[in-house]
Amino acid sequence: MSGYPQVDALAGQIRSGSVRALARGLSWLEADTPDGDALVEALYPFSGRAHVVGITGAAGAGKSTLVTALTRLFRASGQTVGVLAVDPSSPYSGGAILGDRIRMADVGSDPAVFIRSMATRGALGGLCAVARDAVDVIDAAGKEVVLIETVGVGQDEVEIMRLAHTILVVSVPGLGDDIQAMKAGLIEIADIHVVNKADKDGAHRTVAELQAVLPPTSAYGWTTPVLSVVASTGFGVSDLATQVTAHANHLRATGEWQRRERQIAEFRVVKLAQRLVARRLTQPVHSGGDLANDAFDRVADRRLSPRQCAETLLSYPSHQRDLHVRPRHSQEDLERA
Amino acid sequence: MSGYPQVDALAGQIRSGSVRALARGLSWLEADTPDGDALVEALYPFSGRAHVVGITGAAGAGKSTLVTALTRLFRASGQTVGVLAVDPSSPYSGGAILGDRIRMADVGSDPAVFIRSMATRGALGGLCAVARDAVDVIDAAGKEVVLIETVGVGQDEVEIMRLAHTILVVSVPGLGDDIQAMKAGLIEIADIHVVNKADKDGAHRTVAELQAVLPPTSAYGWTTPVLSVVASTGFGVSDLATQVTAHANHLRATGEWQRRERQIAEFRVVKLAQRLVARRLTQPVHSGGDLANDAFDRVADRRLSPRQCAETLLSYPSHQRDLHVRPRHSQEDLERA
Repeated sequence: MSGYPQVDALAGQIRSGSVRALARGLSWLEADTPDGDALVEALYPFSGRAHVVGITGAAGAGKSTLVTALTRLFRASGQTVGVLAVDPSSPYSGGAILGDRIRMADVGSDPAVFIRSMATRGALGGLCAVARDAVDVIDAAGKEVVLIETVGVGQDEVEIMRLAHTILVVSVPGLGDDIQAMKAGLIEIADIHVVNKADKDGAHRTVAELQAVLPPTSAYGWTTPVLSVVASTGFGVSDLATQVTAHANHLRATGEWQRRERQIAEFRVVKLAQRLVARRLTQPVHSGGDLANDAFDRVADRRLSPRQCAETLLSYPSHQRDLHVRPRHSQEDLERA
Repeated sequence: MSGYPQVDALAGQIRSGSVRALARGLSWLEADTPDGDALVEALYPFSGRAHVVGITGAAGAGKSTLVTALTRLFRASGQTVGVLAVDPSSPYSGGAILGDRIRMADVGSDPAVFIRSMATRGALGGLCAVARDAVDVIDAAGKEVVLIETVGVGQDEVEIMRLAHTILVVSVPGLGDDIQAMKAGLIEIADIHVVNKADKDGAHRTVAELQAVLPPTSAYGWTTPVLSVVASTGFGVSDLATQVTAHANHLRATGEWQRRERQIAEFRVVKLAQRLVARRLTQPVHSGGDLANDAFDRVADRRLSPRQCAETLLSYPSHQRDLHVRPRHSQEDLERA
């Protein structure tokens, strides 16, 4: 219970599986309102069960087709699936606006599959924050596998991948002389490498290049496989789905799952603290006058350094009401879990 | 005066125009050590005089060639120039490593021109922070125009552009059906649009497309021009340099310069406060035990929400020494410079 009847009602509908409620909840998150914050608070205790799989790689690597193919396989094995397609470079957002989503028409009409695309937001770091919260909400809605797909290989995408338990890095032959993923430091974060369009010239070379730079077997005993697939025909995708599930099982069996959950938690808290600080510093202060405003003026005039200013403002006592509205959970709500 | 003789010595050498000292100072910044922090503190009061010009646009738009051509023109008009080439997707950093820099050989040997490239850094948001500080240091070194060039059109690049007084967005014909800049929201932030390679097919269409989506004349009376250039031959670059200077004059005449300085100051302080918070939350706490560690565990177990955790940790009294350590350099270290 958040203490806000509207929020509690929507949270309840989302947990009971309403697709419309889930879509509405994600729209609240995208609108960046206190309602969205309260919804995440209400649903967070019920998240943490989904296997979150990140899929990244250069534009043109065929990630959307791969996600569709994987979704079909997870469905065939009886799992419910949520898909979150995140495109920091696109101004479009919503249910199924991205052109590639059209290919998902067959799985898109399956009520056990939820698909959502999210695009660029004005606020700095806003998209990544919304993606984090969206994963929780989809997770709390009961989806057993959540696939997060990002377009492009920038820092935004790497940050979003840090929310996943299992990271798939998709390469294709012929997109450039180098392995595209190397530039963005994706080689190190991959749990599974996928070479898509493996029927094209140069596929063997791409596989060999990836194998040559693979990190050694991890501390928890996982060796990153390099899998060849042709997402458009389904070739190799079954093996890939098996490896994705095997990775989740391996994480759980070795205790690495909990360690990653802990890492994700720390990452999220730090990023959220950063957002709260930005909000506190830039929103009008209700009491104490225009402390921050004056300070920014002094920085602009070189009478105060950015560092001195930041440290002074951080040490200034915060006012809870500037930061947010704090929701509350009721006992019943937790017992219903 | 920073209170640290070695930092003050380097700051003095930078202000008196030593190229070696400036290069060394920027290396301190890139190493992300307390040395660099103290150097920026020492030099900040002497910054704020340079006209900071940001140049962005899709890879392949010919930005490096354009920067070289502009540098020649600013030199011809008697101005000193600093160039900072920032590539978030490249693992290379240093004096003149990027291949395109080779074209700058003629201006690169001019002692009134300082050129530096900076590339990707491990820390999240680290590159942008370093770029901010680097601009101050180059500014304090007396460079009258500082050109910041970024590769790519992601959020990182947009953030870096927010440090500039004047933003040039470079497009080229034929890089795609749409104007590349539109995707990343660069249209709105451009003070001057440049269509490079204007001798190629489709240049007129690119110009027309940009003109069709231009924002109206700004509140301070500036109408964003769309200029056609051929950076490799110099065609149109003189007009461009004139417009860049005209924009600076217009900013100063209308008071917009001061407003932008204020915006830049606020943006910097907020970003710095965010870094300090991340550092405080993730570095070992010297007193008070493992408060943050326990809290992260509870978030991972869903006993505490990320928001509650972030707010609790932010309200915890900060210890100056957790935020940063003031640097100390040995005399030998400096003499080795």
